[in-house]
Amino acid sequence: MPAAVEDRDKTEENVSEKIHRLQSNSSQLTVDDEQLQLAAAYVSDAQYNRNIQFETSPQAIRFYKLYNHWSTQGVTYFFILVDLFLALFEDPAVYLLPVWVTSVVEFICLLMFTLRLFHFSKITPTKVFWRDAKNICVIVSILLTLMDMIVYLTLRETGYFAVRWSRVLRPLFCVNFTESRQLRRAFRNIRNTLPEITYVFVLFMFSVAVFSLMALKLFAKRKLSTVEGALYFSNYLDIFFNLYVLVTTANSPDVMMPAYEVSWAYSIFFVIFIIVNTYVFMSLFLAVVYNDYKKHLKNEVRKLVYMKHRKMIEAFNLLKITYGTEFVVPDSRWRQLVKLVAPEIPSSQRELLWRVSDDEQKGFVGRESFIRLADLLNIQVVQMKERTHPLEKCLPNMYNSTVSQFIQRIVKHPGFRYTYDVIIVINAIFIGGDETNPLISKAEWVFLTLYISEILLKLFVYEPRAFFAKSQFWNWFDSLIIVAALMGTIVNAALKSSGGYSSQQVLDIVFILRVLRLIRIIDSFQRFRVLLNTLVNLIPTMLTYAGLVVVVYYIFAIIGMEAFKGRIQFYGANSSDPAAKYCGNPALKGSQFAALRYCRNNFNNIVSAFILLIELTVVNQWHVLAAGFVKVTHLTARIFFVIFHIMVVIILINIFIAFVLEAFFVEHSLARSAVETAVEKKIQELGMGDCVDCPAGNLVEVMETNENDLGNTDNTDLKSKLRFKIASIRYKTVDALLQHMFEEELNPEDEIPTFEEIDNLSPDDYVPKQPTFDSIA
Amino acid sequence: MPAAVEDRDKTEENVSEKIHRLQSNSSQLTVDDEQLQLAAAYVSDAQYNRNIQFETSPQAIRFYKLYNHWSTQGVTYFFILVDLFLALFEDPAVYLLPVWVTSVVEFICLLMFTLRLFHFSKITPTKVFWRDAKNICVIVSILLTLMDMIVYLTLRETGYFAVRWSRVLRPLFCVNFTESRQLRRAFRNIRNTLPEITYVFVLFMFSVAVFSLMALKLFAKRKLSTVEGALYFSNYLDIFFNLYVLVTTANSPDVMMPAYEVSWAYSIFFVIFIIVNTYVFMSLFLAVVYNDYKKHLKNEVRKLVYMKHRKMIEAFNLLKITYGTEFVVPDSRWRQLVKLVAPEIPSSQRELLWRVSDDEQKGFVGRESFIRLADLLNIQVVQMKERTHPLEKCLPNMYNSTVSQFIQRIVKHPGFRYTYDVIIVINAIFIGGDETNPLISKAEWVFLTLYISEILLKLFVYEPRAFFAKSQFWNWFDSLIIVAALMGTIVNAALKSSGGYSSQQVLDIVFILRVLRLIRIIDSFQRFRVLLNTLVNLIPTMLTYAGLVVVVYYIFAIIGMEAFKGRIQFYGANSSDPAAKYCGNPALKGSQFAALRYCRNNFNNIVSAFILLIELTVVNQWHVLAAGFVKVTHLTARIFFVIFHIMVVIILINIFIAFVLEAFFVEHSLARSAVETAVEKKIQELGMGDCVDCPAGNLVEVMETNENDLGNTDNTDLKSKLRFKIASIRYKTVDALLQHMFEEELNPEDEIPTFEEIDNLSPDDYVPKQPTFDSIA
Repeated sequence: MPAAVEDRDKTEENVSEKIHRLQSNSSQLTVDDEQLQLAAAYVSDAQYNRNIQFETSPQAIRFYKLYNHWSTQGVTYFFILVDLFLALFEDPAVYLLPVWVTSVVEFICLLMFTLRLFHFSKITPTKVFWRDAKNICVIVSILLTLMDMIVYLTLRETGYFAVRWSRVLRPLFCVNFTESRQLRRAFRNIRNTLPEITYVFVLFMFSVAVFSLMALKLFAKRKLSTVEGALYFSNYLDIFFNLYVLVTTANSPDVMMPAYEVSWAYSIFFVIFIIVNTYVFMSLFLAVVYNDYKKHLKNEVRKLVYMKHRKMIEAFNLLKITYGTEFVVPDSRWRQLVKLVAPEIPSSQRELLWRVSDDEQKGFVGRESFIRLADLLNIQVVQMKERTHPLEKCLPNMYNSTVSQFIQRIVKHPGFRYTYDVIIVINAIFIGGDETNPLISKAEWVFLTLYISEILLKLFVYEPRAFFAKSQFWNWFDSLIIVAALMGTIVNAALKSSGGYSSQQVLDIVFILRVLRLIRIIDSFQRFRVLLNTLVNLIPTMLTYAGLVVVVYYIFAIIGMEAFKGRIQFYGANSSDPAAKYCGNPALKGSQFAALRYCRNNFNNIVSAFILLIELTVVNQWHVLAAGFVKVTHLTARIFFVIFHIMVVIILINIFIAFVLEAFFVEHSLARSAVETAVEKKIQELGMGDCVDCPAGNLVEVMETNENDLGNTDNTDLKSKLRFKIASIRYKTVDALLQHMFEEELNPEDEIPTFEEIDNLSPDDYVPKQPTFDSIA
Repeated sequence: MPAAVEDRDKTEENVSEKIHRLQSNSSQLTVDDEQLQLAAAYVSDAQYNRNIQFETSPQAIRFYKLYNHWSTQGVTYFFILVDLFLALFEDPAVYLLPVWVTSVVEFICLLMFTLRLFHFSKITPTKVFWRDAKNICVIVSILLTLMDMIVYLTLRETGYFAVRWSRVLRPLFCVNFTESRQLRRAFRNIRNTLPEITYVFVLFMFSVAVFSLMALKLFAKRKLSTVEGALYFSNYLDIFFNLYVLVTTANSPDVMMPAYEVSWAYSIFFVIFIIVNTYVFMSLFLAVVYNDYKKHLKNEVRKLVYMKHRKMIEAFNLLKITYGTEFVVPDSRWRQLVKLVAPEIPSSQRELLWRVSDDEQKGFVGRESFIRLADLLNIQVVQMKERTHPLEKCLPNMYNSTVSQFIQRIVKHPGFRYTYDVIIVINAIFIGGDETNPLISKAEWVFLTLYISEILLKLFVYEPRAFFAKSQFWNWFDSLIIVAALMGTIVNAALKSSGGYSSQQVLDIVFILRVLRLIRIIDSFQRFRVLLNTLVNLIPTMLTYAGLVVVVYYIFAIIGMEAFKGRIQFYGANSSDPAAKYCGNPALKGSQFAALRYCRNNFNNIVSAFILLIELTVVNQWHVLAAGFVKVTHLTARIFFVIFHIMVVIILINIFIAFVLEAFFVEHSLARSAVETAVEKKIQELGMGDCVDCPAGNLVEVMETNENDLGNTDNTDLKSKLRFKIASIRYKTVDALLQHMFEEELNPEDEIPTFEEIDNLSPDDYVPKQPTFDSIA
């Protein structure tokens, strides 16, 4: 094709001409180091979606770099954790430490938080700093905590009763440090959703109140009795509470039975109540939460995207030079910048990114292309080197012998996997058996040997670094489980043979490991692997949620501990103490709480408190637990338990469902971003693609073609055995997907708002387009 | 503006010219009655979204008209209900009727179903009839039922034991008759979702199995005991069932307590179990159900829309005449058609519709415009006549006297409403009081008087027909409640004074009515009114769902009755029979079922069965109920209860949530359809708009302008005091919204598939567009 060649030659002429022209005004090519640093700060922010406005002075930028360094972030997280874990050692404690120890540690934590905040204040413009609610929140929390500590220690020394109430503020540090953006957003969403929910809640309460009045009129005069022999539905408040519990379904059908026994017609009352309040209102709560969650999420995403573009534009403006009528960034500056922003990227990969940015090989990039850099840096390009097996290198004769070849063929045969699937199933049966039986305990060694030899064989056949690559989840899982089980079994056998004593803890762990081994069978079914991947992809989303739950639980646990500590005692599983029967509190004599042996469910330390709160979240029997605490502390307990129920079950669980639904839909509406497509196209163009799937012959062909194609360009560092692959073509979070979508809808000509404007965006500013058939339902 | 006038004149010239030209080939204007009938059938189908293919012979169309007539439909529904309600009178019965009575009635029902099906077969082409699964289903059901009836009666006469198993088929008639399209779709959706769910379910079961094995290894050797004294977690199947129950949360935290008492570390096992299985897997179920539900819903909607367009095109082709190069339908034919399709529409309104269709007053409509007719007919245009109060007509002097005017001003004053709000609150307190207190029972008369006078005053002030208009929900509600309460109170007082005897039933109803009166206070708060409207709009969707639930419940109730009837006996609320303690079945002695007085929860008649199934749906204590039945029937019961749980709680409840979420989002993404906008625009253009909100002066002005504007066109029947209003600008169902959206995305040039093609559309044919920022999240 001579025409094509000519064409290429022409382009190259143009390119060299352009570069020449660019270099002619060379004064423009060297860039001020300070400006470069500033641009790098902008780009880095855009890459990691940091929503921070910083000062542009060189000193502030140095500070800012330090602020975002993993070490200072790590230290902050560490002290937040220390602060939270202090609850383990403070009265009521799991392991009680002297007050002065915990106080000193807490003081150090506060000091670190102050330092961090001070550091931040040096970075951000003063006006912005003081307008930011989270800074104010941290300052107030630190001051209140200090005050509380002083008051508490003084009162304590002078022998007065004192409460460390400021401990409930601790999770605020966790929420308000800039690193926990996701968590903060979740909280902001909850806060934003509250007004809307409140109306539904009031209507819901009105509905329960009306039904209660009806129940009072219907049942109070009948003098029915409950199973426990108490008077059934005798006063209004009692009925109201019972019907509220019925909404949570915790006392169904018991609460209905006395009336139902009199006449089946009364059951209609309860059925209507449940339909209206449990199903309709609770669905309405879900719908309101979900709807608001989506609305505010969109606004946040919009802010993030604008902020990213704004920062990239600022960086562009710092680095741009004039070229003809347009502004561009020449490749030398671009390379300097990328080196500074992402020093960990190898030069070959940087070259690839440059190729993507400067698609037409002009020697410079325009504004549009420059803005894409933030996303480009986020794409994980994996460099794959084709490695030969280390044994083949060291002992080529042995590794390529007939026996070795035979083993390799066997291990690679599907039958090998099927055999192990069968072994796992047999293993499951043996695990179910009684391990004191010598046959079974010996079989365990056989199975262990089989599993270990499987791993060794695979390591013999596959290249070890490939076998233990990051993406090989199941190989890691198998090996860890097997090695741990081997070690556990050895430790256990050693303990047993040494003194006939076997530690229950070690045994328990060994048992768990043995059972976990069975999970591997899922990997053998394509369909389940897909489902499991979906679940694994949900994990990042769930972790944000877990953070949210921990914060809420922590606050309730601290309050619960202050209010109820020591009121309910647990005397051990087989205590003969008569007080054990009523949890050490005479008020509980004859209560359902004591009868069901719920004494362990108390607020006597933070671990117990967390477990109790989880039980309350699961809802079932929460009214019995609440009734137990009501018996020992009256009104406080009822308020505490109801508020917890509303906060966690009505709001948090619905947000969880919203989280999961969104994450799941995202999994189903995947689309590659334009940037990823561009990178992949370039990789393919350069013939550096991942060819694991393509047949060997084809691969060679492709490589040869590349050699020709790339003949006269400067690809020397890109060629050879390098292979690139995009690590993940899936968006891991709803967030990321939404960002990409919003970006794609953004018109390139649209004006990006300024920092100030971005800050003040509200969800109502955004006029959504008409819904489409695909979007709804 | 002389230019505008000239323009109008020109148009009018054109119009008259056109009409003249049309009339000149007058042979085209008369239309064959048979063709008109056929076109009317098509349009009527399109209007009501009937998805039926019918033969085009005149006889078939007459049959088809009869088939769709409300009377034949009503008869079918009636016999479906009769068939379903037969369960009340068959053993185990609420009121037992002799077998021959129920058999004869059932036979008549079957006869009617056969007739209906036969009728249908006369309408639809034979090939289509036999390819339709629902027809086959009905035929098979009828045959099986007949067979079963014969076998049952024979066996019964000869004294053998016999089961009327075919009764479970009865709900199929309910599902499969063409009228219940929504219900059928819901079922089809469930069926389509099943494969997807099955995979998740298997994985979920595997997860429970693995956890059970772990629990076995951890706890079995410890020989712990439960609160009831039984051995805790001693064998695998027991553990599996207990953990399955834990997934439903019904035995939390009891199932954990024995292990938790030994060590808090064991609680981690249960917490992880709950997180993985209750929260993650159940959310996954919801996500899968919701996702599939949406996917299939879209396909159904697409089919419906295509079918509608196809039918309108067929109708158009029947009525079209050539006009120049295009095909059109002249106004005379159009009017004939509309008269035939919707004889209930008054001529003035038909004129309005014609104006909308023939926007440019050409005297004919094109294909596009003709297709819109189906939607046009669906828009409820309310004709409002400004009426004078009847009292003003009869006694103008009295009605316009100063006193009367004063009363009118008072009633219209906001203070009047506030006063009554206060009265309602005071009333609530009195209702809560003890009604045997003479003060309170007298107060009731005072309140009744106050409420009645309120209604009478309002009727005096507002025009009665306007006061009791369809849209005035609260007026209807108030009046009905008050009148019913008045009647109840009078009946009660009469009973009391006549013999000192007061009927509990009457009293109960009076109490309920009194309490219901309080609901009216919601109407006084704008915010709650909006919420309540949302809830009211959800009702149509919920009714479909209710139908679905009834069908499923019915099947389970029939099976449960056959399997468990008489096993558990209820001896009345205060029975002294010793057997009442253990529900008449010695197997239940000492069981939790008997201890909690659950004897009334049995399958001894269909009402009890339904109530029990509702209790199982609410989930709480379902394991206790199941355990009771397991004690009396072993394996059957366990299978029955677990399958019910899976079917109803895992599938149906999730579908319910999907329903509600969708309906709620629809409420939030309302957009007027193009057709509605066109009608409204025309109404405004003609100045016939609803001007309740516009100031009186303005109204007059608008009217005057109209007079001028419409001067020389033939609006005589449209003018005068007529006012139009679109009854509802909201889509009532997800369905309708989706249809409109799909239609708007449909390109007018797109070819509409043929009947055959429409039938074979599958959800995977449809390639959705890229998701947009607004659609996701």
